[in-house]
Amino acid sequence: MKIIQTIEELQEIRKSISSSVGFVPTMGALHDGHISLIKQARSENDIVIVSIFVNPTQFLKGEDLDKYPKKIEADSKICELCKVNYLFLPQISTMYGEDEVLVKAPNIKSYTLEGERRPGHFDGVLQVVLKLFGLTKPNRAYFGKKDAQQLALIKQMVENLFLGIDIIECEIKRESDGLALSSRNVYLTAEQRSDALAISKSLHAAAAIIGKKEFDCHVIKEHMQTIMSQLDVEYIAFVNRQFEEIQTIELKNSIILVAVKVGNTRLIDNIWI
Amino acid sequence: MKIIQTIEELQEIRKSISSSVGFVPTMGALHDGHISLIKQARSENDIVIVSIFVNPTQFLKGEDLDKYPKKIEADSKICELCKVNYLFLPQISTMYGEDEVLVKAPNIKSYTLEGERRPGHFDGVLQVVLKLFGLTKPNRAYFGKKDAQQLALIKQMVENLFLGIDIIECEIKRESDGLALSSRNVYLTAEQRSDALAISKSLHAAAAIIGKKEFDCHVIKEHMQTIMSQLDVEYIAFVNRQFEEIQTIELKNSIILVAVKVGNTRLIDNIWI
Repeated sequence: MKIIQTIEELQEIRKSISSSVGFVPTMGALHDGHISLIKQARSENDIVIVSIFVNPTQFLKGEDLDKYPKKIEADSKICELCKVNYLFLPQISTMYGEDEVLVKAPNIKSYTLEGERRPGHFDGVLQVVLKLFGLTKPNRAYFGKKDAQQLALIKQMVENLFLGIDIIECEIKRESDGLALSSRNVYLTAEQRSDALAISKSLHAAAAIIGKKEFDCHVIKEHMQTIMSQLDVEYIAFVNRQFEEIQTIELKNSIILVAVKVGNTRLIDNIWI
Repeated sequence: MKIIQTIEELQEIRKSISSSVGFVPTMGALHDGHISLIKQARSENDIVIVSIFVNPTQFLKGEDLDKYPKKIEADSKICELCKVNYLFLPQISTMYGEDEVLVKAPNIKSYTLEGERRPGHFDGVLQVVLKLFGLTKPNRAYFGKKDAQQLALIKQMVENLFLGIDIIECEIKRESDGLALSSRNVYLTAEQRSDALAISKSLHAAAAIIGKKEFDCHVIKEHMQTIMSQLDVEYIAFVNRQFEEIQTIELKNSIILVAVKVGNTRLIDNIWI
């Protein structure tokens, strides 16, 4: 595995690759969720590029940019074990200049749910992903379903800008007790972690009652609220795969999303129905 | 020459090309300025793609979107004679959907000069150029120096988004009497056209006094104003190649720009010093 730190080196290397490239952009602190993305990229492409970059433009003022977990040595080892070909580790000054061309996420889709709580967050996400796509020019790029709204917006960006990149949607990885893997889980105390289990429980309960043909989102939501009654729930939302709000579950075209604050930590989770 | 009207067809064709691609984006109504871009693209690339698309997002309300000159048959013939391989003629609905991912030109550079008079204009220019770059994935793209601010912003976008495309700057083409070629010159009456000659005269006069080592932009500007005293001058500006305002001419790093309103027609021109 080759570690790359400069734009010039990455561009030079990319020019020399004529076979298929799979790209996995990350912010590091790699867990089994990331590993599953990397493994899938490994199995579907000749060359795998992983990036680790804690992108400042997607953090709002007061968010956890400075304390976002960093484990670069362990991350590097993981990538090596997963037979990644190139690990791209840029600095902020490598990625950004002054007074840049900006990307603006769509008005409607990007200012609901996560975008409503984190205004401008998705502008930063799309900006850095577009930069990384420009550098790595992947055939396929891998994103987890856990950040479902991010995934929908990246897919839309690829469509709107005709980038011709296959966006591969990867399943959410969970602890054996159901907690969705997240780099931010390290912020949780034992008690908070235990409380947080109600999130995935509520999602699985929703799937169970949908299995019994309850498709009314209002009813499902009330059921989920009961399960998460001890938690500070920011939203429970029902959207289709185009991320438009729905009132009735459409099988194979719905996503149920939850955002919860546990102590100072925001956790998001979802289930694709 | 093959005419392409759909995204799918263009993407399919692009995938099949492994040799070098030169791209010339235009809004049609092709004149000798465009032809010189196409000829240069022809001489430097295996495959030449030209697009003709009057992009609505770069026109402001009240501008000449609806009456922008259209000469598609003549344009198509010109492209054929210039041995263009592919002519892309999309519809608006082919290029744009609803609630799109947007591109925002840099704050400072895009809200001076043309951007000050046409706020949002460059957002639309960068958006459509980025879409067209996504579709055509050129090795080289050709732009005229006449739209100098546009050229600077496109170069910046390529840098900021690491697109890895060579932006080729092409010389301004002029009528024998000095008037810079523009698709909008057809709007001019004979009298207006005659008045408009003062624009290029003022630029050549500027070059002449710079040749005599007068580098003070204030002095040069006064001289130009005298020559254009009969015209409704919107601005005379002095910038370096990074499009930052300058007070003193730096040889081989300066551009003098003029915008003038002749009747209802805005004309821009410039000279690279």
